[in-house]
Amino acid sequence: MVATKGYAVQSATTPAAPFAYEHREPGEKDVLIDIRFCGICHSDIHQARNEWGNSMYPMVPGHEIVGTVARVGSKVKKFKVGDIAAVGCMVDSCRECASCKAGEEQYCDRGETLWTYNGRDKQGNLTFGGYGDHIVVDEAFVVSVPKNLDPAAAAPLLCAGITTYSPLKHWGAGPGKKIGVVGLGGLGHMALKFSHAFGAKTVQFTTSANKVEDAKKLGADEVILTKDPDWHVKHEGTFDFILDCVSAPHDVTPYMALLKRDSTMCTVGIPESPIQLPAFAVAAGRKSFSGSAIGGINETQEMLDFCGEHNIVSDIEMTSFDKVNEAWERVIKGDVKYRFVLDLKTL
Amino acid sequence: MVATKGYAVQSATTPAAPFAYEHREPGEKDVLIDIRFCGICHSDIHQARNEWGNSMYPMVPGHEIVGTVARVGSKVKKFKVGDIAAVGCMVDSCRECASCKAGEEQYCDRGETLWTYNGRDKQGNLTFGGYGDHIVVDEAFVVSVPKNLDPAAAAPLLCAGITTYSPLKHWGAGPGKKIGVVGLGGLGHMALKFSHAFGAKTVQFTTSANKVEDAKKLGADEVILTKDPDWHVKHEGTFDFILDCVSAPHDVTPYMALLKRDSTMCTVGIPESPIQLPAFAVAAGRKSFSGSAIGGINETQEMLDFCGEHNIVSDIEMTSFDKVNEAWERVIKGDVKYRFVLDLKTL
Repeated sequence: MVATKGYAVQSATTPAAPFAYEHREPGEKDVLIDIRFCGICHSDIHQARNEWGNSMYPMVPGHEIVGTVARVGSKVKKFKVGDIAAVGCMVDSCRECASCKAGEEQYCDRGETLWTYNGRDKQGNLTFGGYGDHIVVDEAFVVSVPKNLDPAAAAPLLCAGITTYSPLKHWGAGPGKKIGVVGLGGLGHMALKFSHAFGAKTVQFTTSANKVEDAKKLGADEVILTKDPDWHVKHEGTFDFILDCVSAPHDVTPYMALLKRDSTMCTVGIPESPIQLPAFAVAAGRKSFSGSAIGGINETQEMLDFCGEHNIVSDIEMTSFDKVNEAWERVIKGDVKYRFVLDLKTL
Repeated sequence: MVATKGYAVQSATTPAAPFAYEHREPGEKDVLIDIRFCGICHSDIHQARNEWGNSMYPMVPGHEIVGTVARVGSKVKKFKVGDIAAVGCMVDSCRECASCKAGEEQYCDRGETLWTYNGRDKQGNLTFGGYGDHIVVDEAFVVSVPKNLDPAAAAPLLCAGITTYSPLKHWGAGPGKKIGVVGLGGLGHMALKFSHAFGAKTVQFTTSANKVEDAKKLGADEVILTKDPDWHVKHEGTFDFILDCVSAPHDVTPYMALLKRDSTMCTVGIPESPIQLPAFAVAAGRKSFSGSAIGGINETQEMLDFCGEHNIVSDIEMTSFDKVNEAWERVIKGDVKYRFVLDLKTL
């Protein structure tokens, strides 16, 4: 077994605190990674506090993981010791269903997507994530980080990056398209960078006047302040796709009116309370409201390669394990530009 | 002017009653139709009672219109006196925007779709619908009824028919696909007939045990009673498309779980209160919730031709103008199999 130390929460109401645990001994297809950096995702907090109602404890959060390959099993082909490797939100799936075979392991038809933490593997063991110094993962669910990228700033690509890259690609963001990004936080700032890099005319929606300049620097061609009266009127029917990165409950109806006929608004913010969707908002123009969850493993590698080619990383603030609970509170308040990353050296 | 008599409502709180009014003198591209039959659509009642908040009075409802061409303008090409012609939910649009040019006049980008009744034309006159003995319509918005179809039973094709035909075609109902139809009423029974005729495996969802046999006769391969406990569990992830024909508020979440990855549930029932859509219901499997409104004019003609080839009409109950208010009450209760049609001879 691989002795590991990290930070865990022991219940929905206790803070993250030091914790010693074990990963399995690497099998012939496994990669042992010495974790160097792990991003802090809002879903770490949701799950630590059992806000989705499915939490298992002890929980070692973290699914934006970058590290150095320390050991490989005898049949590992993609990695060798010393490589920079990364792990995102999942570490296994059934690998046999139509979705898995289509490279959409996150939508495994059998519901066997094994999450990097707060999951239980086929042997019945809890999975433990990136808030710890090691992880052991089947190479099929490990991806490579281009050498030109700062590994700390690359860590959030494994969740915030792929979560925004995948729907933008799926719904055709590119030259000649007008794309909206709702919310400028961890997800939104990556969506802006990708949409801009794909060559789409990219419009940021924000409630915060103080984010306008930032949005423009990050790639927005236009910024629309949604606190202005009638902010939406002159933009109605002009958008090809809108990616909604806001996790707080909010009114989607005016955004639906901004879409062209047959176009889609997609949530990746995943608010806790149901979205209120007037039937007329979809029927008038045959519009769709959709959602998306991360992306498949091959697409995650494609995204990382794209980031390597275009020098795209996350805008991060480094933090340390002694401040992780404080960082979580700041994430809840939206007080970070735009993603916290834990340095495993601070453990 | 064309002197016309029919039934109108004078306010949101008064019943339909006899009313004399005029249509414009037919212009060179206009067709004057002697109306023979008009279906009763639930939206007649919604609008008569101002339940959508946009009603104009006096209102002569009716947009499922079949009649005989009585006169044609000098430049009319598609029709001659004596033809069986039909008019649906719209009688004009801008004809110049991208949606109109794409044959989707119901989604006119300029918002200039002119509804058959409860609309105001470019001259500022109210439009009056099919609860009257004549109508004058530009031939561009008039369609032909195949001669082999019963004209009374064909009338509901102009709204209930095209409203279900269009989304089933759009989302690919056909051989090899599994299609769900929610609700068995005026819309649902047409959806069943079309989905079956398209060659799809067609599943009817209903709360009414007494509709099971009817659904099978109408083309359902399987009927699922949604009052059974856990009715949805064994069907999860198996549907390619679900058409929701229910106008009363209801929970769509279990239906979303029935969809395959990347599939769509579409409302044509258009409930008044917003649909409650949990973000997880769309994000898990990248599913979409959509809506659809009738269909374009060319598609309406295509639908009528398809009905002619496959001998498809609506299942109707004939009624008379002296019973129209009673018929409305029965529509509200769902007490009709499956569409009322007014015979203009009873005027």
